[in-house]
Amino acid sequence: MYDADIADGWDIAGNANGGYLLALAARAMSDSVGRPPMSVTGHYLTPGLPGPCEIDTDVHRAGKRMATVAGQLVRSGENVLSALGLFADQVPGGPVVQRAAPPELPPIEQCVRRPPPAQPSGFGDRVEVSVRPADAGFYDGQPSGEAEVCGWFSFADGAPIDVIGLLLIADAFAPVIFNQPEFAPSWAPTLELTVQIRGVPAPGPIRCRFVGRYMQNGLFEEDGELWDSDDQLVALSRQLALSPRG
Amino acid sequence: MYDADIADGWDIAGNANGGYLLALAARAMSDSVGRPPMSVTGHYLTPGLPGPCEIDTDVHRAGKRMATVAGQLVRSGENVLSALGLFADQVPGGPVVQRAAPPELPPIEQCVRRPPPAQPSGFGDRVEVSVRPADAGFYDGQPSGEAEVCGWFSFADGAPIDVIGLLLIADAFAPVIFNQPEFAPSWAPTLELTVQIRGVPAPGPIRCRFVGRYMQNGLFEEDGELWDSDDQLVALSRQLALSPRG
Repeated sequence: MYDADIADGWDIAGNANGGYLLALAARAMSDSVGRPPMSVTGHYLTPGLPGPCEIDTDVHRAGKRMATVAGQLVRSGENVLSALGLFADQVPGGPVVQRAAPPELPPIEQCVRRPPPAQPSGFGDRVEVSVRPADAGFYDGQPSGEAEVCGWFSFADGAPIDVIGLLLIADAFAPVIFNQPEFAPSWAPTLELTVQIRGVPAPGPIRCRFVGRYMQNGLFEEDGELWDSDDQLVALSRQLALSPRG
Repeated sequence: MYDADIADGWDIAGNANGGYLLALAARAMSDSVGRPPMSVTGHYLTPGLPGPCEIDTDVHRAGKRMATVAGQLVRSGENVLSALGLFADQVPGGPVVQRAAPPELPPIEQCVRRPPPAQPSGFGDRVEVSVRPADAGFYDGQPSGEAEVCGWFSFADGAPIDVIGLLLIADAFAPVIFNQPEFAPSWAPTLELTVQIRGVPAPGPIRCRFVGRYMQNGLFEEDGELWDSDDQLVALSRQLALSPRG
C-alpha cells in the first residue's frame, strides 16, 4: 500500500484529470515491481477530488522480464480508479515497421493554447497543450466537423516527460467529440483508458494525434498516438467515454 | 468464485486461444453483476492448457447502470489470465456518427478458410474464419506486405454470436504481423487484449478488420473492428503482442 496525494491544481472543474490519476496509480504499481509501464488500463469509478489517497497494489505475476500488477486508487474509502497493467522495459532491436506517420503540426507558437473549456480548472496551468489551429475551432463554438484533435504537449514548468508522463498526456487534450457538431461540447467522462508505452521519449515536446471514429449508443472511443522529437512513436492510447448528453 | 473448464478443442498448438479465455473469464464476471460486458481488458500470464479452472471475481463498483469487476482465471493454482472490465447494457439512442466503414469482403465462399498455421490446433474446427484472399497469402508463405487481415467469422456449429462471443472473435484471426515479410510467421503471443463492446450483434456472421501499424522494440499492436450483418460496428479491439523472434 502506497500513501499518495491527489495534488491540488491538476483538476478540470474540480476533479483531477484522468490521465493524472492513471499516472499516479501507475507510478506506485511500477514501483512495486521495479519496472516501467508497458500497457496500463484504468477504469474510472468516481471523480477524484484533491486530497490524500492510498494506492493498493497487487502483483499478479513477476517474471524474468515482465510483471503484471493490479492497482486501486482509494480516497476517503472510495475506489476512484481501478487499474491493471503490464510492467517491463522496452527492448530496442529487431525490425521496425511504421505504417503511419506523426501528425503534421505547425510550430508550437502558431498553435492555440487555451484553458480547458470547463472552468475553473487548474490543469490548464500545469500543462502546455497547444492545439493545431484547424482542430481548435471548438474553443469558439466552431467545431471542425471531424472528431480529431492534434497538437503539442509539454509540462508548463518544463519538466522532462518520462514514460509515466505519457500516461497523463493520453488524456490531456479536450475530447475529440467537441469537434463533432452533433454533440454539445460538455462533460464527456472517461470510462476506461488503456495506454501502451511503445518507446522511451527523447527530450522535448510530444506531438499528439487524437481521433474518434465511432459515436453511437451514447459512447465514443478516442484513439491517441504520441510521438517524440525523434519521430518515434512512444505511446498508443485508447479510451471509451460517454458522449455528452447536451 | 466460479468453477469453469478450459474445454478441449479451443487450443492453438495445445494452448487455449486467448479470446476464448477472455470470453470464459468475462462470462463469470458478467454473471457476478448481472450485466453484459462493455469494455474488458485481459492480461495473459501463462498459457491456458485444457482442464478445470476457477474464476475469481471481485466487484469494485456496482452503480445503477454500470459495474466494474476484476477477474482472475486460475488453473492448477496458476494465474492464467488477469482481467478488468466494465459491465453495462448498451443504451441505443442519441446521435450516430461513423467516420469509417466496414471492410469490403467478397462472399464467404470466395474467402480462404484454412486451419491455424500452428498444428495440431482444435480451434480451427470450432470456428469458421474465412480470410479475404488478398490477405491470405501468408498461409502459403506469400505475405501481402501490409499488416492487415480481414475476413468473416462464424462459429463452426452455427451457434449465435452474442456480446461474449465478440470477445473471442477479437483474437480469432491469425496475427496481422504474418503479412509483414520482415517477421517470421511464428508464435506472436498476446500480452494484453482490450475489447470495447459497441453494439449487440444482429444474427449472422461478423465481418472483421484487423490492422497493425507499429512494429518496434519487439512489440506490435493489432486493432480490430467487428461489424454485424446490419453494418453496425459491434466491437473495437486492440491487443499488444510480442513480435515473432524468427
